Amino acid sequence: MRILGIDPGLTRCGVGVVELGAGRRVRFIHAGVIRTPPSDPLEQRLLAVSRGISALITEFTPGAVAVERVFAQHNLRTVMGTAQASGIALAMAAEHGLPVGLHTPSEVKAAITGYGSAAKLQVGTMVMRILGLDEIPKPADAADALALAICHGWRGSVGAGLEANGSETPAQRAWREAEKSAGKRRVAS
Amino acid sequence: MRILGIDPGLTRCGVGVVELGAGRRVRFIHAGVIRTPPSDPLEQRLLAVSRGISALITEFTPGAVAVERVFAQHNLRTVMGTAQASGIALAMAAEHGLPVGLHTPSEVKAAITGYGSAAKLQVGTMVMRILGLDEIPKPADAADALALAICHGWRGSVGAGLEANGSETPAQRAWREAEKSAGKRRVAS
Repeated sequence: MRILGIDPGLTRCGVGVVELGAGRRVRFIHAGVIRTPPSDPLEQRLLAVSRGISALITEFTPGAVAVERVFAQHNLRTVMGTAQASGIALAMAAEHGLPVGLHTPSEVKAAITGYGSAAKLQVGTMVMRILGLDEIPKPADAADALALAICHGWRGSVGAGLEANGSETPAQRAWREAEKSAGKRRVAS
Repeated sequence: MRILGIDPGLTRCGVGVVELGAGRRVRFIHAGVIRTPPSDPLEQRLLAVSRGISALITEFTPGAVAVERVFAQHNLRTVMGTAQASGIALAMAAEHGLPVGLHTPSEVKAAITGYGSAAKLQVGTMVMRILGLDEIPKPADAADALALAICHGWRGSVGAGLEANGSETPAQRAWREAEKSAGKRRVAS
């Protein structure tokens, strides 16, 4: 199944598509950024994000959408645009009949690096390694969107089912265990 | 020209339509609330708001949309849902090719009551009087949406053009002057 990850934003909305296979294997399909100029009227920017996401869903036919959960607590200056873009992403997923998963940044970091407070570079590096890419996807928003998609796949029921049947590679098992122990350390939100 | 006012929200999204005529006269066309149950998944709620607004635009064919400007500073607990719903409202207006006006709550209060810190009841009372209704539109979200639509009509270029040609009634002139002096008192945002 393909998973579309969306790191919502107005100036740069990161998007990434991965294919989740057997044994928690994930394959890179697409990464990019929907950009809208800050000089455009807000409603036109939101419409551009909406159409961009809709076009991606049509092109890559994901079976699920993962969106970063936005909090009001940080980045007060930009949080409203981010929240509005996330609303657009969620409504677009629903419009296409796709199930949605919301993941916090620390959940994504824990799933990808085993550590919920990992630095951006560390997340990007692990996304590159997990997907077997030659370099870290750029810009960071695209890497974050791929991380969200991977996180969604690994945290979902598909991954949970595989834990029991021993089809993991040793590296995949290491990821899962790191994720688990990070989960234990995480403060309930 | 008809104006659709939207007081964005997830549990209750207020909507109101007025017809702006000559001499800043406004006529009541419609008021209502789009409700979505908090027990529904977030993406389904946002889709319902999106479809509700789209249906209203199709039914009442407004020429402009006025949306309340949302700030991150107040109501931190509910502000994210409100911001997401406002994003949906803005994108829907753009989708239908309609110009959008964003107005802060104090701009709306100043336009409707002459006082930017007016109480909710005062705004509702003035909406009732301005539109010649027998009672205050309920719930408050619907009255707020009508106030937004009136504010947009009165603050827009149509109203500005009429100021010069003496077609105002004495009551309308009083409104305009109250609005002006409230504007002077207002702190720039």
